[in-house]
Amino acid sequence: MSEITTVVLDAMGGDNAPAAMIDGAIDAISKEKNVKVILVGIEDVIRKGLEGKTYNPEQIEIVNATEVIETAEPPVHAIRRKKDSSIVVGMKLVKERKADAFVSAGSSGAILVGGQVIVGRIKGVDRAPLAPLIPTEKGVSLLIDCGANVDARPAHLLQFAKMGSIYMENVLGIKDPKVGIVNIGAEEEKGNALVKDTFPQLKELPGINFIGSVEAREIPHGQADVIVCEAFVGNVILKLYEGLGAVLVDKIKGGMMSTLRSKIGALLVKPALKTTLKTFDATEYGGAPLLGLNGLVVKTHGSAKAKEVTNTIIQCVTFKQQNISEKIKASIQAEEAAAE
Amino acid sequence: MSEITTVVLDAMGGDNAPAAMIDGAIDAISKEKNVKVILVGIEDVIRKGLEGKTYNPEQIEIVNATEVIETAEPPVHAIRRKKDSSIVVGMKLVKERKADAFVSAGSSGAILVGGQVIVGRIKGVDRAPLAPLIPTEKGVSLLIDCGANVDARPAHLLQFAKMGSIYMENVLGIKDPKVGIVNIGAEEEKGNALVKDTFPQLKELPGINFIGSVEAREIPHGQADVIVCEAFVGNVILKLYEGLGAVLVDKIKGGMMSTLRSKIGALLVKPALKTTLKTFDATEYGGAPLLGLNGLVVKTHGSAKAKEVTNTIIQCVTFKQQNISEKIKASIQAEEAAAE
Repeated sequence: MSEITTVVLDAMGGDNAPAAMIDGAIDAISKEKNVKVILVGIEDVIRKGLEGKTYNPEQIEIVNATEVIETAEPPVHAIRRKKDSSIVVGMKLVKERKADAFVSAGSSGAILVGGQVIVGRIKGVDRAPLAPLIPTEKGVSLLIDCGANVDARPAHLLQFAKMGSIYMENVLGIKDPKVGIVNIGAEEEKGNALVKDTFPQLKELPGINFIGSVEAREIPHGQADVIVCEAFVGNVILKLYEGLGAVLVDKIKGGMMSTLRSKIGALLVKPALKTTLKTFDATEYGGAPLLGLNGLVVKTHGSAKAKEVTNTIIQCVTFKQQNISEKIKASIQAEEAAAE
Repeated sequence: MSEITTVVLDAMGGDNAPAAMIDGAIDAISKEKNVKVILVGIEDVIRKGLEGKTYNPEQIEIVNATEVIETAEPPVHAIRRKKDSSIVVGMKLVKERKADAFVSAGSSGAILVGGQVIVGRIKGVDRAPLAPLIPTEKGVSLLIDCGANVDARPAHLLQFAKMGSIYMENVLGIKDPKVGIVNIGAEEEKGNALVKDTFPQLKELPGINFIGSVEAREIPHGQADVIVCEAFVGNVILKLYEGLGAVLVDKIKGGMMSTLRSKIGALLVKPALKTTLKTFDATEYGGAPLLGLNGLVVKTHGSAKAKEVTNTIIQCVTFKQQNISEKIKASIQAEEAAAE
């Protein structure tokens, strides 16, 4: 029998909470027998949401947390003050090894701060990067770091390259994942001070498959599996990806509705187009892990629906089964041992 | 009678040179009587390209330049060594006030270096930013800076805000253009060190209409007319805009061709879709000016076709007629006078 993965799910976070969280949890446990979901949040609300639903009660547990951190609250302050919030209570369960993973669609800032402060970083890891999967022509790439800790140093980027490689190899099954660094030209001498400092060190870094610079134009073509960058740049890439995709799809829909002729055509192309655009929909790929922590923390989109929640919970099972945290620990500590 | 604007056009630069350059020039002079185009490049090649074409010979001049700077050449080296290249010869004409503007689809690096070294910056301008127009839902925004000088300081970004505002107000006719700074959150306390330093200074800067932070997700919605950022970030935004747009349009075309039903639909939606996507095509808006120089330098896409060349030449006329360089000079020098 396989080991059970215990996932704490923030029932209160996100635009569609608690319904999408509860439905996502129920769907996940019906698909994956080796998972148990702890729904954390206001108990009455969760119980009411579960009423009338069919699920295996052994795979669901409720943990009461009376407070909710709002998206607009300053993260550090919120984590410190709201001790009985779903994020703080949920993360403590991971910290105390009562659960393997924490999943939330709530305040990004609070999740990033809580991950570092409550769950804590693996010894030797300097920064815990937020690493979403972004869709490409060829599949997906891991964009690392898109978190809140900007102005990184080269040593941080080297760790991102290692952690990202471990994730892509073990969770997505990509053998010897290609690692690129975001740059403004293909040549080694191009870039800002950070990239110029980091590039030669990435070239020498053992255990990763470094392919060099990746220009932003090339990112959607999927030439690298792991795309390393500083968090400000990563955040810009991630948000522009989402914003531009949405605007273009809207424009196209608008164009199709502009004439009678095109409206008829739209009816005919719609099913085929839906399938195509699905492959470019970020919510298909589950949430973004915060890597390098003593346990897994995953941030899903604020607008996450049940399907994204389900996919994210199942992702947590692979993460646990593949011992990602242990592999990251071994890789980072081997580097430290070599440096001594 | 209006003044004549003299535009030097690099006949040798870009993927479609010299044909697209020659056709673009001929089209521009037929549309705009107050422009004269100096075609600079290998004279025999240009003469051959002009053979059999109908145009007003008073509006076209040829200046011979025997060398060509290739895209792959290190820019500083190329500008220094190839004294008889179309870029160096053409820019000298602007420097010597024999022409008002220089337009090229050639090596970006060489154009950026040549602009600063040969044409030279306006006194008081610390950096000459490359400022392309990017398409948005509402029209276009000026993205400033996308050039090669990365790791800017706050003072540079303040000048970009001023120069960008002058350009959008006078060349595009946008009254009191809205200025935003690229950031990873809407709040003033968000951002990297550069943005945090610059934000309060932009708020206090007289003569601009600062609206605060612009998240990358919002850029395609067009909420700001002038989008200020450091060149590394600007370059990432510009290239991702181009790359993601191309990949999405390809995906959609592929999706439409995937079934018989959708193929029939595609025939019907095609004309309407073409019109829509045109508004999101960067080449519709001419080239990217390098602002803050003693004369105008414009970089068009390497893949520029005749139409983009024509639009760019006509843009140069507005630039000259609106005295953009003089307005930038006055604005920057007023700031210096105030500081003394």
